[in-house]
Amino acid sequence: MNTAERAARVMARADELATHSAMEGGILRAYLTPEQARVNAIASAWMREAGLRVWPDAAANVCGRRLTDDDDRPAVLLGSHLDTVPGAGRYDGILGVLVAIEVADRLRDADLPFALEVVAFGDEEGTRFGTTLLGSRALAGVWKPEWLDLVDADGVTLRDAATTFGIDPERIPEAARTPESLVAYLECHIEQGPRLEAIDAPLGVVSTIAAAERRMISFRGEARHAATPWELRRDALLGASEAIVAIERVARDRDGNATVGRIRVEPDAVNVVPGFAEFSLDLRDATAAARDSTWAAIRHELHRIAGDHSLDLDVTTTHVAPEAPCADHLRAALKAGISSVTGEDDPVDLVSIAGHDAMAVAEVTDIGMLFVRCAGGISHHADESVLVEDVAAAIDAFEATVLHLAATHRA
Amino acid sequence: MNTAERAARVMARADELATHSAMEGGILRAYLTPEQARVNAIASAWMREAGLRVWPDAAANVCGRRLTDDDDRPAVLLGSHLDTVPGAGRYDGILGVLVAIEVADRLRDADLPFALEVVAFGDEEGTRFGTTLLGSRALAGVWKPEWLDLVDADGVTLRDAATTFGIDPERIPEAARTPESLVAYLECHIEQGPRLEAIDAPLGVVSTIAAAERRMISFRGEARHAATPWELRRDALLGASEAIVAIERVARDRDGNATVGRIRVEPDAVNVVPGFAEFSLDLRDATAAARDSTWAAIRHELHRIAGDHSLDLDVTTTHVAPEAPCADHLRAALKAGISSVTGEDDPVDLVSIAGHDAMAVAEVTDIGMLFVRCAGGISHHADESVLVEDVAAAIDAFEATVLHLAATHRA
Repeated sequence: MNTAERAARVMARADELATHSAMEGGILRAYLTPEQARVNAIASAWMREAGLRVWPDAAANVCGRRLTDDDDRPAVLLGSHLDTVPGAGRYDGILGVLVAIEVADRLRDADLPFALEVVAFGDEEGTRFGTTLLGSRALAGVWKPEWLDLVDADGVTLRDAATTFGIDPERIPEAARTPESLVAYLECHIEQGPRLEAIDAPLGVVSTIAAAERRMISFRGEARHAATPWELRRDALLGASEAIVAIERVARDRDGNATVGRIRVEPDAVNVVPGFAEFSLDLRDATAAARDSTWAAIRHELHRIAGDHSLDLDVTTTHVAPEAPCADHLRAALKAGISSVTGEDDPVDLVSIAGHDAMAVAEVTDIGMLFVRCAGGISHHADESVLVEDVAAAIDAFEATVLHLAATHRA
Repeated sequence: MNTAERAARVMARADELATHSAMEGGILRAYLTPEQARVNAIASAWMREAGLRVWPDAAANVCGRRLTDDDDRPAVLLGSHLDTVPGAGRYDGILGVLVAIEVADRLRDADLPFALEVVAFGDEEGTRFGTTLLGSRALAGVWKPEWLDLVDADGVTLRDAATTFGIDPERIPEAARTPESLVAYLECHIEQGPRLEAIDAPLGVVSTIAAAERRMISFRGEARHAATPWELRRDALLGASEAIVAIERVARDRDGNATVGRIRVEPDAVNVVPGFAEFSLDLRDATAAARDSTWAAIRHELHRIAGDHSLDLDVTTTHVAPEAPCADHLRAALKAGISSVTGEDDPVDLVSIAGHDAMAVAEVTDIGMLFVRCAGGISHHADESVLVEDVAAAIDAFEATVLHLAATHRA
């Protein structure tokens, strides 16, 4: 099977996985759901066809290891995730799993100085339980028992969801890998940004995954009849709106990245001044220091707004991740891999503003990431798209990266 | 039973009705719900005790007419509503029904030149189906057949809700009263504003109910991954936030009244730039002309914001009501009624920024409204409160108003 055929197969498989969704008119596939069970089964079958021994781990990730790697040598792990945000595209995460399977298939009989494994994580996006990277953090050995008490929008705990899915919630930590069992983690992923397209390059190497922090911010004022005069209002939504405008201004001035993706008000009635408003804030920056400085400036604005409108401000931090630098030798291997395919002297380095499973896996082994050009920087949207030629280049480059690592590996 | 005892009974009855709620920790009673059925039954019993013949009308309003009014003389109709917003207080609407029952009880044997009736409307707030004044508009003969297709938050149509409640949806228009059957409509209501408190007056007379208009405004941009650079974003929530800030500035500058009470975004995920945001706008002013001028200024801002962020703007008008002036002779009767109780020479006139059933009933007969002082201008909130002494004054003044009308009535 040549690379073009493999790339076509990846595209077809992405299309097939896209049909497994919990929403109409878009893709939604969350952790520990029937949709996850279906795509796990499909991915398991594809992994087996690729010559892998396949097992579900204790956290409902799908794992595979070459049949020829029947010893306990440490492994190079290739992977990404199969879960999605609501209204997702078909490549974010999925492409990385499918490319990893193609590379494993191609290298099924290769004589490598390490074992080769593939993983399809069950949760990177945090769609269902708010907390991200649940699958990859379980594998990295940093699972927290209190996550079992996280609840989804229907009030179902992660504990109960795990039981319903068919895994033992108390045994999820057993998904943990040891540092000794791994050589490196390599992840192929769409860029989710416009830079590769802007420089007309199909592939790039991630230098660092940005430091990220997520908060829920709320203002509490007083629910009042719409007839209430201005001077008696403590309008929580007006405060939230001023805050969202200020967040954009502050973060943009500092070249930071900030997103307010969720908002809700109470009592949410057309003729009542909202007494409560809560919104999310996702802050990212190339370094934790830059991100923290932006947050300090935003926090200052939030306090000012709360004072202006006599609102009570509450901030809960739901997620903190420092920047995750990719390992120098893996960046070098990825560059060598890309160069062997595209002929470029020095493939481009990119900071990933988006978070990735690699951030979590960095807790247990070195990480490296290959970025694939996507159209218009569009992601988390049905219009997310990649070129089949770029997928072919990614398969070849990702395989070449593993072979480069093999050639330079010291056991 | 003296007035103080009657006022205490009104307070106790308001407390009793407050226990019939569809939400925990607050009052919520919407149209055509089991909660409405329960309070309708209770109010019917109280009306019967007050010497009224009681019937449910075709729109699920509760109606009563003095037993002695066994002819077809036109009636003075006293009333208000029993439905609530979510998280409501216990007096908005309810107080008016309870005061009307006390006045009817007191006048059960009075020799009046007109019949005397009481009505408890089933929908004023529009909580369930978005469209307000459904009960009073049915009585006023301006029911629209297309309202049967309105749906609640669970997707239940008004048609199906009516059937479940036990009324025939096709026969709701039969609730209509003719102009010939009515002499006048008088409504007692809490002020829902701070002006009576500010001038230390228990009661006031409404001059006009403000012109009101409700719209749903939406911005459509593009859902994008949180990693999307600023220049590629079309953030619908950022646009909505700028709009909400602008609405407050524009309306406040013009001494208008504007409320954004609802907002929702899609896809509503912490790490996705919102591609869609929709919010409500409730605009009120003493005259339709002033309100329309404010809307023109707001619309200008909305178009500017849509242009700034490459968003598609959509505006749907869900409710329009011109100002509803109260009839001069009813205002005079109410002033005479108040003066007889408080000794004031000239009781204060107030514009009602809040909408009321009287606005709808104005379509079929003359309207007059008595306002009762409430604490801090607070309404649509659990802290809504009135003084029992003010309720006593309201009962006496409302009765005196009816007697004043009787004395000046020309058959």
